[in-house]
Amino acid sequence: MGEREEFIDDLRSRMAASDFHRWLGIELVDARPGEVDLVLAAEPRHMNLQGLLHGGMIATLADTATGLAVRTKLEPGTRHVTVQLDVQFLSPGRPGSIFARGRVIRAGSQIAHAEADITDSGGKLLAKAHSTVAIMNDRKAGGSD
Amino acid sequence: MGEREEFIDDLRSRMAASDFHRWLGIELVDARPGEVDLVLAAEPRHMNLQGLLHGGMIATLADTATGLAVRTKLEPGTRHVTVQLDVQFLSPGRPGSIFARGRVIRAGSQIAHAEADITDSGGKLLAKAHSTVAIMNDRKAGGSD
Amino acid sequence: MGEREEFIDDLRSRMAASDFHRWLGIELVDARPGEVDLVLAAEPRHMNLQGLLHGGMIATLADTATGLAVRTKLEPGTRHVTVQLDVQFLSPGRPGSIFARGRVIRAGSQIAHAEADITDSGGKLLAKAHSTVAIMNDRKAGGSD
Amino acid sequence: MGEREEFIDDLRSRMAASDFHRWLGIELVDARPGEVDLVLAAEPRHMNLQGLLHGGMIATLADTATGLAVRTKLEPGTRHVTVQLDVQFLSPGRPGSIFARGRVIRAGSQIAHAEADITDSGGKLLAKAHSTVAIMNDRKAGGSD
Repeated sequence: MGEREEFIDDLRSRMAASDFHRWLGIELVDARPGEVDLVLAAEPRHMNLQGLLHGGMIATLADTATGLAVRTKLEPGTRHVTVQLDVQFLSPGRPGSIFARGRVIRAGSQIAHAEADITDSGGKLLAKAHSTVAIMNDRKAGGSD
Repeated sequence: MGEREEFIDDLRSRMAASDFHRWLGIELVDARPGEVDLVLAAEPRHMNLQGLLHGGMIATLADTATGLAVRTKLEPGTRHVTVQLDVQFLSPGRPGSIFARGRVIRAGSQIAHAEADITDSGGKLLAKAHSTVAIMNDRKAGGSD
Repeated sequence: MGEREEFIDDLRSRMAASDFHRWLGIELVDARPGEVDLVLAAEPRHMNLQGLLHGGMIATLADTATGLAVRTKLEPGTRHVTVQLDVQFLSPGRPGSIFARGRVIRAGSQIAHAEADITDSGGKLLAKAHSTVAIMNDRKAGGSD
Repeated sequence: MGEREEFIDDLRSRMAASDFHRWLGIELVDARPGEVDLVLAAEPRHMNLQGLLHGGMIATLADTATGLAVRTKLEPGTRHVTVQLDVQFLSPGRPGSIFARGRVIRAGSQIAHAEADITDSGGKLLAKAHSTVAIMNDRKAGGSD
């Protein structure tokens, strides 16, 4: 099994073990070192009163995608915690498949920076996000992925 | 019925009509002009794999609280859209009541700035957030509250 | 004179008329619709006590580059105001040429989103930035470019 | 000499030794553990073409104020690097004294969060900012204060 398949398997089992992601309807689509693709099956319950995808769901996708992208670059025995997230909301989203691509910009020994693009099934860019992630020795602190 | 009660009633019915907030478990606690208080009944399904409150839930609370705070300041016939959100994650959260206080910093005719503090039931500050909100004539564009 | 030359000429005269940019040592290199390139001749006075480019200079480049990129997309009679800026600092900078490329992500009638990459003369990425820009009718409010 | 005087003396000599801050016209006014006050003597050269304080100067004040506030909380042998800064621009500034108060929100062993309020001499709030700061062992990496 190649490097790429290992990443996907590891992340896929993490997400399958996560009640949070099953509950929200977020699944892993693909992963490469430093990059992951997620999909949210956006249903009416993910919409705000105006029938548009809630910004919190976009932020959740962004936080998850950037966190998992960083995870693909971590050394064994380390863990990551999102310490800051910013999201630029560009276009409203609607029910259907919503994709998030998370990508590491720079991973140091202590800090990683990552970004995410959120797009709909027509390829329209709904949001861009950046996160700042602290990397620490295992069991030292709590994360958010 | 005084001004304060009207705010609360209007916002409470908005949230009661929202499948999204019922599904997530977010409720309005109180509201004043320019400020709202929300609570999330954080359950195990809101946690990440480490048993800690997912950053996306904190971002959702922050987006909702800042958006509703701005809504208390809107003229009739206008609507708001969150165009940018940033969150500073300070401490990990756990199951239990999670509170969000949203507050308008400045509301102009076209742009509003708002902030939110997210705290747990012991009063510990879990996160701080800011949002930038566009204000537009009704039916012009989609929002995210 | 083609469209591209007009953009460059207009922006170049704006910057030449700006005491601020002359004082800081920021110049326009090139411009296309929705995109501009700037350079800062970073000298010892731009450095912090550790001999590294001050974060404020990077933020200044980012604010200027994103603001000018938005300006290339504005209708006559409108003006822009940066309402929010975030910067991710990735690597330390040193004296020498520092480049900023500003790029519009989305320009609506009321709000524009833009981003900037800051690089050194060796092509190393020093920072990434996003800005949220309000677009308004002329003389309505103050900008920051 | 009390604790407070030591903070002020240490920070004042840092800033006096800084060509950058002298060049820009930024001075320390006061400091307490976890909090500092700076002033910029804003002159016409700090203004943009519209005669308003450039957003980059506000970001520079914010980065400096939050960085110095974090520095008051550092253990000996550690140093700080701003890894992320976001600024909300609220009102335009004009020539005159511009004040920045930087304040630590949370300082951990590896990450600190700080915020700054930028006000003019009439007490009007011009901007709010947050920064995320990495704390590391001395000589490990470059900072931006």
